[in-house]
Amino acid sequence: MKRSLGARTLLYTHPVVVIGTYDRNGKPNAMTASWAGICCSSPPCVAVSLQKPRHTYRNILEQKAFTVNIPSEDQVREADFFGLVSGKDTDKFAISGLTPVKGTLVNAPLIDEFPVVLECRLAHSFELGVHTQFIGEILDVKVDEATLGPDGRPEMGKVRPFIYDSARQEYYGVGRSLGKAFSVGRDLKG
Amino acid sequence: MKRSLGARTLLYTHPVVVIGTYDRNGKPNAMTASWAGICCSSPPCVAVSLQKPRHTYRNILEQKAFTVNIPSEDQVREADFFGLVSGKDTDKFAISGLTPVKGTLVNAPLIDEFPVVLECRLAHSFELGVHTQFIGEILDVKVDEATLGPDGRPEMGKVRPFIYDSARQEYYGVGRSLGKAFSVGRDLKG
Repeated sequence: MKRSLGARTLLYTHPVVVIGTYDRNGKPNAMTASWAGICCSSPPCVAVSLQKPRHTYRNILEQKAFTVNIPSEDQVREADFFGLVSGKDTDKFAISGLTPVKGTLVNAPLIDEFPVVLECRLAHSFELGVHTQFIGEILDVKVDEATLGPDGRPEMGKVRPFIYDSARQEYYGVGRSLGKAFSVGRDLKG
Repeated sequence: MKRSLGARTLLYTHPVVVIGTYDRNGKPNAMTASWAGICCSSPPCVAVSLQKPRHTYRNILEQKAFTVNIPSEDQVREADFFGLVSGKDTDKFAISGLTPVKGTLVNAPLIDEFPVVLECRLAHSFELGVHTQFIGEILDVKVDEATLGPDGRPEMGKVRPFIYDSARQEYYGVGRSLGKAFSVGRDLKG
């Protein structure tokens, strides 16, 4: 039996990403977002939605570039902090002790301590309501070498990303493997 | 030290959702997607990206409606199967044994056995490359009563959604709580 909860932004699962930008004076900023996801395979693109009053909003429009930084479980405090205060008034990097490093392909800062970073060029922006959706073309993905397995691909147990539960405003880690994609349902094909 | 993996659609974490649609004859279809996420808080909107050859692609354009169904860990086989075959040739509901139930607000089927379903009206579509991004306005969220806690909100441990690891094409469950959002980073504010 289902119960109606009304029109709301409940989805499972939401990612937790940190958007890195520079302002016009080259000051780096970082902002946490969960309204985000891959939206195209070729060209590879990621979508992140922001509200207009955000400092990061103006930075993206001015620089036409941003990074999408994936925190690990070890950085849950810093990622949460980046969503609590505005870069207008605060130097979030100085307070958190994390290190902004200029991207090699775009004018946006990578968070050096985070295990995975996407360098993005602003490709489109769409006004959807209180949020504007920015579509970034992913020009490169940079990952910590320590997260790579023997086959050169990152391992979930080393990246250790986490998710956001919007129903209860809580973070959760990733659990056990449930099997291979494009495989575990193959027996149903008959 | 970071290693460059090139321009690719690597992100943590990807959701696993199943898109429900009707074709012009009222036959229900279900298709699994991970290029998806919330993209606006008001009006509440969800984005899902699909390729043109998909049966679901045409259904959404014709009906201007779709559902976003969240499978639980118990349905990982069925969700994987829904991504392996095309609804053009197959009655995926008949084969999987899952039950399509007509939405109450839109002309699209809910998957009755799945714990959470979003009923969506097509609000926009954006051509991004090989994928078209469909923006659905969420008109209602319906959840299984068995997933609700005493406070009337769904509990992660009862919904039991899972995620997709695109680096290794593998599914993972949700792990332990890492703390409250907008709270665990508060002490960094000083």
